[in-house]
Amino acid sequence: MDSVLRQSKAVCPFMKKATAAGLRAMSTATPTTVSPGGGAMSKLQVLARRCPVMGKAMAVQSARIGHAPGFPTVAAKAGISTFPGHGKTSKAKLHTSRSQEAQAVDTSVFTGHDKVQLPPRLPNKQQVSASPAVTTRPNVSGTRAGKFDYDGFYNRELEKKHKDKSYRYFNNINRLAKEFPRAHMASKEEKVTVWCANDYLGMGRNPHVLKAMHKTLDEYGAGAGGTRNISGHNKHAVELERTIAKLHAQEAALVFSSCYVANDATLATLGSKMPDCVILSDSLNHASMIQGIRHSGARKIIFKHNDVQDLEEKLASLPLHIPKIIAFESVYSMCGSIGPIEEICDLAEKYGAITFLDEVHAVGMYGPHGAGVAEHLDYEAHLEGRPAGTIMERIDIITGTLGKAYGCVGGYIAGSAKLVDTVRSLAPGFIFTTSLPPAVMAGARVAIEYQMEHQGDRRLQQLHTRAVKEALTERNIPVIPNPSHIVPILVGNAELAKQASDKLLQDHGIYVQSINYPTVPVGQERLRITPTPGHTKEYREELVNAVESIWTELGIKRTSDWAAEGGFIGVGVPDAAPEEPLWTDEQLGIAEAARTLLQAADAEQKAAPLTGGFTERLLEREMQNMRSASVSA
Amino acid sequence: MDSVLRQSKAVCPFMKKATAAGLRAMSTATPTTVSPGGGAMSKLQVLARRCPVMGKAMAVQSARIGHAPGFPTVAAKAGISTFPGHGKTSKAKLHTSRSQEAQAVDTSVFTGHDKVQLPPRLPNKQQVSASPAVTTRPNVSGTRAGKFDYDGFYNRELEKKHKDKSYRYFNNINRLAKEFPRAHMASKEEKVTVWCANDYLGMGRNPHVLKAMHKTLDEYGAGAGGTRNISGHNKHAVELERTIAKLHAQEAALVFSSCYVANDATLATLGSKMPDCVILSDSLNHASMIQGIRHSGARKIIFKHNDVQDLEEKLASLPLHIPKIIAFESVYSMCGSIGPIEEICDLAEKYGAITFLDEVHAVGMYGPHGAGVAEHLDYEAHLEGRPAGTIMERIDIITGTLGKAYGCVGGYIAGSAKLVDTVRSLAPGFIFTTSLPPAVMAGARVAIEYQMEHQGDRRLQQLHTRAVKEALTERNIPVIPNPSHIVPILVGNAELAKQASDKLLQDHGIYVQSINYPTVPVGQERLRITPTPGHTKEYREELVNAVESIWTELGIKRTSDWAAEGGFIGVGVPDAAPEEPLWTDEQLGIAEAARTLLQAADAEQKAAPLTGGFTERLLEREMQNMRSASVSA
Repeated sequence: MDSVLRQSKAVCPFMKKATAAGLRAMSTATPTTVSPGGGAMSKLQVLARRCPVMGKAMAVQSARIGHAPGFPTVAAKAGISTFPGHGKTSKAKLHTSRSQEAQAVDTSVFTGHDKVQLPPRLPNKQQVSASPAVTTRPNVSGTRAGKFDYDGFYNRELEKKHKDKSYRYFNNINRLAKEFPRAHMASKEEKVTVWCANDYLGMGRNPHVLKAMHKTLDEYGAGAGGTRNISGHNKHAVELERTIAKLHAQEAALVFSSCYVANDATLATLGSKMPDCVILSDSLNHASMIQGIRHSGARKIIFKHNDVQDLEEKLASLPLHIPKIIAFESVYSMCGSIGPIEEICDLAEKYGAITFLDEVHAVGMYGPHGAGVAEHLDYEAHLEGRPAGTIMERIDIITGTLGKAYGCVGGYIAGSAKLVDTVRSLAPGFIFTTSLPPAVMAGARVAIEYQMEHQGDRRLQQLHTRAVKEALTERNIPVIPNPSHIVPILVGNAELAKQASDKLLQDHGIYVQSINYPTVPVGQERLRITPTPGHTKEYREELVNAVESIWTELGIKRTSDWAAEGGFIGVGVPDAAPEEPLWTDEQLGIAEAARTLLQAADAEQKAAPLTGGFTERLLEREMQNMRSASVSA
Repeated sequence: MDSVLRQSKAVCPFMKKATAAGLRAMSTATPTTVSPGGGAMSKLQVLARRCPVMGKAMAVQSARIGHAPGFPTVAAKAGISTFPGHGKTSKAKLHTSRSQEAQAVDTSVFTGHDKVQLPPRLPNKQQVSASPAVTTRPNVSGTRAGKFDYDGFYNRELEKKHKDKSYRYFNNINRLAKEFPRAHMASKEEKVTVWCANDYLGMGRNPHVLKAMHKTLDEYGAGAGGTRNISGHNKHAVELERTIAKLHAQEAALVFSSCYVANDATLATLGSKMPDCVILSDSLNHASMIQGIRHSGARKIIFKHNDVQDLEEKLASLPLHIPKIIAFESVYSMCGSIGPIEEICDLAEKYGAITFLDEVHAVGMYGPHGAGVAEHLDYEAHLEGRPAGTIMERIDIITGTLGKAYGCVGGYIAGSAKLVDTVRSLAPGFIFTTSLPPAVMAGARVAIEYQMEHQGDRRLQQLHTRAVKEALTERNIPVIPNPSHIVPILVGNAELAKQASDKLLQDHGIYVQSINYPTVPVGQERLRITPTPGHTKEYREELVNAVESIWTELGIKRTSDWAAEGGFIGVGVPDAAPEEPLWTDEQLGIAEAARTLLQAADAEQKAAPLTGGFTERLLEREMQNMRSASVSA
């Protein structure tokens, strides 16, 4: 047995990672599903069935020992006697063992009509001919008379969510355009400060955006009135897509209902259409990409988060000539880490892959025109209008959202004209859905254009982010270090995270949603704070004081506590190099301002120029500059 | 061979339907894909690989004759010499034969983190250890040095669309709120009449809707700022969902980015979560349902369009106790047929299934409150506010859109509180996407409420539909008969349909998009006309005259031509019973009006009371009544 285990570990990445104790636990775990062989299965068996190597081996073994998998077995379990002869023919033995396998067959994914009907999963003729008599089956067999208990199923699923603390209670948050970043709860009188919205720049209340939307509403009405192909294509779509293509220095762009749909539809379409396509996916990729890859049916290889070496090993293991998509993000929204875009472009070139970069949390926020991290990496070149040869230009597919920093709703892809036309022509999620309303498209276009011309909001956002991170760090609050605008505070416990969030809201009028499993792994529960240009000094002080008091009240671990344990996901890690923010001091104009401020500063501040005190003073200056420059309307 | 064929036909629904000629054609068709065995495959082989019975048989056969399917074979074709020993171990032989099989493994579909990494599809140890050297492979082998040609792939895909005439050219249509149903093209001066939008009732320009949207924009800004769980839940969502639940007499409702997403996410979630779930799907179901079923991985059984007997046979063939979802529509948008809702509810009850009814093209349009066809079937009961025991109440899941008759954008499901909570808690397409903008949700709520209180728009829409159908029929133009508000005109040829659409637009300023494959089957190409309350007499006369002249000019078949061929999809079918519209004369108030009108009418009109002449006279009267009643603001 030991030699088998060793051999397995040598060839199988899953086994390689598994510990002996883990495997033992999985092999004795309570059954989680009904086995196709009719018995109860261990968790390990369930996982093994999903393995392309083991799954097939198990199916053949099962067929050999006479267990025909699938319905007949279920029927046998139920004692249904009108299903004679199951498991007797060789065809039945070869029947699939995977009860969750997709059954759809039409080759054309973009048709409302399925051309080929699948044979029902019945292993032999007798069962088919037995069909008409089936309604009396339960009474004939007498052992399983009941219909499926749907309500029981719903209850069980909900119970599971309650048990593992992943059941979601939505907070009623009505963000007030005129009092940004304030909102009212269910009652208009009950006001709170929002600290976790993704309207990162407050563009949802930008007067230029609102003006464009009002005007378009009046002229073109509430909705688009159809799909893009049937009366839902209009100048708003044309102009928005032209603006997006320009933003990303790409030939073309395509707008979807959301970036969830854009990611899902694009990956599913390309992955399913390109022969033998393999999709290499960062382990922290967003659910929309995970779904798109799953829906593509393409082979998926997960590489370690931001690990270029791991990615290269995986690319190198694949034949050069097969199509490959490397799917990754620029800013990972729950931890704030930033993808190694240039290195991945290099690898893509070397191994004949295309790059699929999700800039959802970066558009509007990085780069001199707000095109995202890819633009930011060639800050000077783009600032001077020279996109040729830049990293952004090398990306094959950029996806972004209109619903976060741009303050509206919707998503998009940008890329070469041929690529975009292909997705436009093949993706059901694009083809068969009503276009976004003209007013939304007009508003989003204005938001992008505004952010292409104004640096103020994103610079102020970055300064506020620095100030919040500094202030929390000074109070020994465990901020997960990262180079971006996300401020994740580690809690490390689902119940505590929810309590902290509830207390912030109820006791302090501050809204920060707790982030629990499955959005983050168990044990990494956190509060995710997103500063905006509107989170001025008073709001920041309120927040930091509230967090401090709740950390004390609930006894949540401080940075020093994590450090005492040797550190965890970047928090309290001894001798860790500091995370340099992507926006440099130079780019934020801090370097220059620092020179001025320092000249006037006293000796004790010179000793620690980057403390909260410094950032606050800088911010006061910045706020005054920006108030007149960018927030005019 | 003949006996094999007979036997196959007896057990296999696909073979049963296939003709000998069809099978011959498929078995000699040019190869469409690379076989896993390395050779070219016929179309029949490609289809057979998808069959759960034949696919497995072929895989084992392939393994026996020494062709290890999958990557190794591709590598072998490419002459890659560093892949030794492929196809030699039994594990490799058992390797999947399905190059398009889904590889995703994480059991939790709602997590951004995949817990288990899949083994790469490499059959033995040597290949894994060979990885680091792989970059030099192409040079070593020398026979296949090229990377995948992505541009070539895009070009080929687009070329295919051009060749089969399914390439879509979008028309730039800017629907003018103040001149409904008029729109301008790219240039503001070039105006056309829109005859194919799905803003069926003109709610996109309804002053109550626009007012609510303007107000909400000002108060709450452009976008929601987050997912429902993270700052995107608000009173607009709460109120909209409450209104939808009330509309459909269900306990709860849930709003999605679109009904495409609602259908996809709900079916995928329920189908994948309920153990051994089977989804029975009408053969004309919309792409969103087809995708949702595919994404669920559940077993899918297609029943013949609106064929209750076929559905019952299929239900009866399944064990009573397994979960089943019957997915169907009320109004099928491309042909206008209406689903047998009550009968399907009966079957669902009998066989322990739940019903999933897509009312996308019916909400706002049918029933005394615009709740759809299910409501319409108990017109009187709902009119009197007695939903208890009605058909609508029996439906388990109703899905609808806010983007068609309600004039905005977005989609929803309605059902029991537990069901809705389950989908809310599990569906990634709901969880991980930004909420609709507050203004959109507010506008949609007002649209629904308006239509709950006013019958005028949908009655006028029905009358205009009748008038258009009558006028076209009188001119021998082939309207595909149906009981709904859709007016499909049969063309029967892709190029002719596109030409007719282009000519209508260019020569007559009338916009009707042609509907070609894959939206409808080849040979059933059509123009799909959607009258609205705004399509008054002048517009209708223009349309009918234009269609008449184009039919003559292009020599498109008339109803009598189809009749001479024995009829086709309802057109020109000899002795066909007339399709009774779902909205009866009584419900439209025609019966009463007819009595008044007929009293005053002359003898010749009495002889043919239901001609266009009569409807036009009735409409004049109706228009006057409605102008004062419902279109006030």
